[in-house]
Order: sequence, then structure tokens, then C-alpha cells
Amino acid sequence: MKAVNPSALAGDAGVKTQAPSPALLFDTINGYHKTAAIQAAVELDIFTALADSPATADAIARHAKASPRGVRILCDFLTLLGFLTKSGERYGLSPDSALFLNRKSPAYAGGTLEFLLSDHLRGAFDLLTDAVRNGGTAQAQDGSVAPEHPMWISFARNMGPLMAPAAAGLAELLPLDAGRPTKVLDIAAGHGPWGLAFAKKFPRAQVVALDWAPVLEVARENARAAGVADRFRTLAGSAFDVELGDTYDVVLVPNFLHHFNTADCIRFLKRAHAALRSGGTVAIVEFVPNEDRITPPGVAGFSLIMLATTPEGDAYTFEEYADILAQSGFSVPVQRSLPASMNVALVATKS
Amino acid sequence: MKAVNPSALAGDAGVKTQAPSPALLFDTINGYHKTAAIQAAVELDIFTALADSPATADAIARHAKASPRGVRILCDFLTLLGFLTKSGERYGLSPDSALFLNRKSPAYAGGTLEFLLSDHLRGAFDLLTDAVRNGGTAQAQDGSVAPEHPMWISFARNMGPLMAPAAAGLAELLPLDAGRPTKVLDIAAGHGPWGLAFAKKFPRAQVVALDWAPVLEVARENARAAGVADRFRTLAGSAFDVELGDTYDVVLVPNFLHHFNTADCIRFLKRAHAALRSGGTVAIVEFVPNEDRITPPGVAGFSLIMLATTPEGDAYTFEEYADILAQSGFSVPVQRSLPASMNVALVATKS
Repeated sequence: MKAVNPSALAGDAGVKTQAPSPALLFDTINGYHKTAAIQAAVELDIFTALADSPATADAIARHAKASPRGVRILCDFLTLLGFLTKSGERYGLSPDSALFLNRKSPAYAGGTLEFLLSDHLRGAFDLLTDAVRNGGTAQAQDGSVAPEHPMWISFARNMGPLMAPAAAGLAELLPLDAGRPTKVLDIAAGHGPWGLAFAKKFPRAQVVALDWAPVLEVARENARAAGVADRFRTLAGSAFDVELGDTYDVVLVPNFLHHFNTADCIRFLKRAHAALRSGGTVAIVEFVPNEDRITPPGVAGFSLIMLATTPEGDAYTFEEYADILAQSGFSVPVQRSLPASMNVALVATKS
Repeated sequence: MKAVNPSALAGDAGVKTQAPSPALLFDTINGYHKTAAIQAAVELDIFTALADSPATADAIARHAKASPRGVRILCDFLTLLGFLTKSGERYGLSPDSALFLNRKSPAYAGGTLEFLLSDHLRGAFDLLTDAVRNGGTAQAQDGSVAPEHPMWISFARNMGPLMAPAAAGLAELLPLDAGRPTKVLDIAAGHGPWGLAFAKKFPRAQVVALDWAPVLEVARENARAAGVADRFRTLAGSAFDVELGDTYDVVLVPNFLHHFNTADCIRFLKRAHAALRSGGTVAIVEFVPNEDRITPPGVAGFSLIMLATTPEGDAYTFEEYADILAQSGFSVPVQRSLPASMNVALVATKS
């Protein structure tokens, strides 16, 4: 029997002690409760019910066609997670919830749940113990890097709106000459936001978007919606195999390299190097943890997703990307943050 | 397209801005990744590999019969969650992990995963949206409060070790006279730790443990192991129906009342009142959030588990328990913390 800590007994429940606690353990084991809570909140559209003003559980329940008691308990949970505020009996939106979880917001990101909670991703984490044993995904057929994997259609349809601010930020960062024609190649374009941000900012830019053929249909829809379809071309196939073309001013590599080992990153970047004009720019958008690989937490934690879902992918550090770029013929990269994103941009030039 | 925040662009990735971020949203949607990570770590016995000294991923991998790369990525994730420390390439145990997750520790709590990640509990959270609509569990047959639910055998087998320090703390708190015979009734005794702590501390105490019959087999095993079987009796059945006996000095009510609505709490406590001698003590062990129902987070969050798994259970506040106790014939309770536990004790006397 463990000795009792008298200081813990003396205090009331509000007193902080250094006594051991299973709180973190339970919070972590019960991580799936948080997944279920945000999923229920999005399905019941709790956040849109608060779009115009704070409201009581009763009022939210009428909007959500749900029980006031159920809504009260769910909203308290969302409040302690940080998605809602609570003042007396009224709940309100946090700034992030107003932006990302209110359906009336142009940056509404509730659709990301369809991708992030897909059978593919959930299944990969069901096999995490085996992935740690293997050192890579325990899913059949190389997980998410299998050719033409259907998950990327869901990614394109659902993850797009969330990336628009970061994509616009990237277009602001790169010093293209708006007055002359420029050529932009967008690798693993998905829904197309990265290349489209350049097409929108630079009226003479021509964008070539590369991805699996069914994914490119989503990108083309978005190009038409953005009114830039006449300057938007697609290239279907693997970025490792397809003929990329040449004399590009910029090659965009958004959230692509983390799926591969460093040798394959170099193999791809040498192809990008060959496709660029002399002095052209490669812009890598990535999760880049610090050298310690444990900070910032949300960024460093991305590595586990790559372990679960890919054979050899990882979240590489700045130093690793600098080495990968050097071995591919590029300059030392400059790292820049991107708005409303955990991604950063690593920008290097063809030397 | 959302306007770009120029201050976010100007800084490097290390600069904190107040710009909106999807970090909390992703962290919450991906809560199930944390569940999978701690489950993998326990299955691979990562923590016991570090019981004697910090070690590298390579050394841990040999112990775990797993890939060094897989172990490195998992251990970085465990470090950013707070379960491990990292210094250079060596990982070490946090104080809580040394106590709760090292198999060599008497307070080893890795077995809690079997209960907390059982099909019953996971299934309840798969139906959380429906539970919010209903205002109570969407599972068949009243969820966890169904008579003789088999989950309580798993609870008794797996959650016991974790409660020993808190149970010993409770026995320290109550001013029983060690010199005279005392009678203790332990409601929903489970593995029996609460009553057994009294039997061990008070050599003349007689303990009666009430629970479903198959659960009591676990409690009896533990009484024999503790050497107090001769002062340990069991009472099988529902705490609402079975004949409880009378002239008890103490009735222990550990983690029982949260399964029920307040009317049923009162109905039960009136039975406990009748079973106590005049001046006897009821000791309720519970998750008791503050009046705001959103702090402390781990305690307030317990309410969601009751929504998912019971028809009408909840985490009641101190004021609610004071009212429930008053309506059942008890004094105003005194609240005390318990060691190594998120539970507190509410102690009241039969007036």
C-alpha cells in the first residue's frame, strides 16, 4: 500500500499539490471521447447555433433538435476543451470556433472530420502497435502512398477551405513579378488552393496542377469557381514518374514530402530542380518540428500520423530539409510561418 | 478568401501570434490518436523498459521487440504528451509514468485500458450524437446501469490498483475508534479497495461489501489476499433493493451516485440513512466539479461519460450533493481531497 501524502489530505479539492495523479493517463486513454465530442458537436451543428449571439443550452437544443440536458453536458465539455466560452448559463463561440466551426464562416472546416475520421485513418491507428513494431504503416499496400488511393479525393473535397489562408499567405511571400508571365507547378495539388492562390494574385501566372486523375477533377472545379480556368492546366499521375515540363518559375510542394523517406524526397526534388528555370524557387509547405522533435507539440505529433499511415514518412526538421535540399541542388532554405496554419514554408532557389 | 494577417507572415515559425489556428480543432478531432498511442505504449511495455534508467529508442526497441524508428516516433509523441522526458537521444519516465505505467510499480494501472477501452465504453461514444439527442445513453438496456452488466467485472479486475492510495486516504480521514468493533458497508464495492482499506486500518472493523454477485468474487479474492477474509462479508444484488442490514458505523458510497438522477440518489441515500446507527457516517467518493461545471477539466469532463453510458447519470456539484444529502436526512457534507485521485470524499453524518 502506497503511503498517503498528508498534505493532499489536509487541503480541499481546489488546492494544487505535487502529489501523483492519474489525470493525464485518463485524459490520454480517453482521447477518443474528445474525438466523439467534436464529431457530435459538428453533426448537431452546435457552433452555428451560436453564430449570432451566446445562447443557453435550451436555445441551442432547439436549433440542434436535441435534448437540453444532452446539449448542456456536451457544451460544458466543449467549453473545458476551449471551443466555447461560458458565462452564467450562456455559451458563446471562441474566436477559433467562430472562424472554423460556424457554417456561416468562409473558413468553415467541419468537413475536415470526414477526412480525418475516415475508415482509412481510423483503421491505421487501430493498427498502431503493429506500426511501431514494423517501423511503418501496418496497413496493406503501403497505406496512404498507394497509387490512386481514394483518401485523396476526400482530402481534396474536405481539407481545402482550411488551407486557403495559408495558400494566400504563401503567394504573398514569394517575390514573383506580377507584370510578366510566370509558370507555377503545384505538386500533389489536391483541391488546388496553393496553385490557385498564385493564379489569383498574379494575373499572368500559368498554373500546372499535378495529382491523381480523380483528385484533379476537384482542383478543376475550384479553378473554374475562382475564374482562372484559362490559366490552369492539370497533369495526372505520380510526381515521381510523370513528365513535369520545364522552365517553371516556382514549384510548390505542399504537404507532400512528409509521406516519403529522405532518399525519395531527394529523388523528387532533383526532378523539381530539373523542371525549374535557373534561379527558380521551390516552396515546400510542411510540418517542421524543432530539432528536439517534441516541439511545437501539434507539429511534432504529426510524425505519428506518418508512422501509422505510410511506410517511411516523417515530419522532418529544418536541418533535415536543409540537407535534403542541398543534396537536390538547392540553396539553404528560408523558413516562414503561414497564417492560420501549423505548416511553415521552406523557400529555396535553384542554384 | 480570408485576408492575410501580415504580422503572421513577417515573423518566423517560432514567433507566437494571436492569429487564428486550427491546432485545437485538429488536436481534438485526432484525440483518438492519443488513445492509440498510450495503448500501443502499454502493449509494447515501453514504460517498464525505462524503469531502471533512461534509454535510447534503440534500447527500448530491443526490450519491446519493435522497430527503433517506430519506437522513436512513439516515444517523441509520448514525450510531448507528458508521459516521458527526453534529454538528447534518451527517454526517461515522468513521475506519474513511473508510478502508474511501470509494471514493476505496485500502483501499475496499465490494466485500466482493458476497462476504459472496452467495446462497451467505445461503443457508447460511437453513439454520442444520439446520446446528446436523447439526453442519455443511446445504448440498449440502460447502458452501464443495466442489472448485472458484465463491464463491472472488468472494472473490478482492472481499475482496483489505481484506487488503493485513495482508499487508504479515505480510511485515514474518518475518525473511527480503532479500539471497538465497527461495522462498515461498502456500496458497489467492485474489487473491494474502499472497504478493505478500513478492514486493514481498523483491526476490529467488520466490512460488508455489496455488488453484483460475479463482481463480489473479485472482492473476496482481494479480501483473502489482504488477510481480512474473516471480517469481510458480501451482499449480492442491487443497492436499491437488497436488505442492507442496520447499525452500520460507516456507509461507503464510492463512485456510485454519478450513475443516477438526483431522485434516485436520494432514494438510495435514504436507505443508507436507515442502515446507519445514529450519528453514523456516510462517505461519498465522487467526481465533483465546481459550480461552473467546467473546472477542474478532468473532473467536469466526467459528466460526458455519464451522458454516453447511463440514462440519467451526471457529475454533481458540491451544492447538488449537499442538497441530495439534506433531503436524505444527512448533515451538510465536508469535502476532502484524496491522494492520487481525481475523486474527492464528501463526508456527512446521520442527523
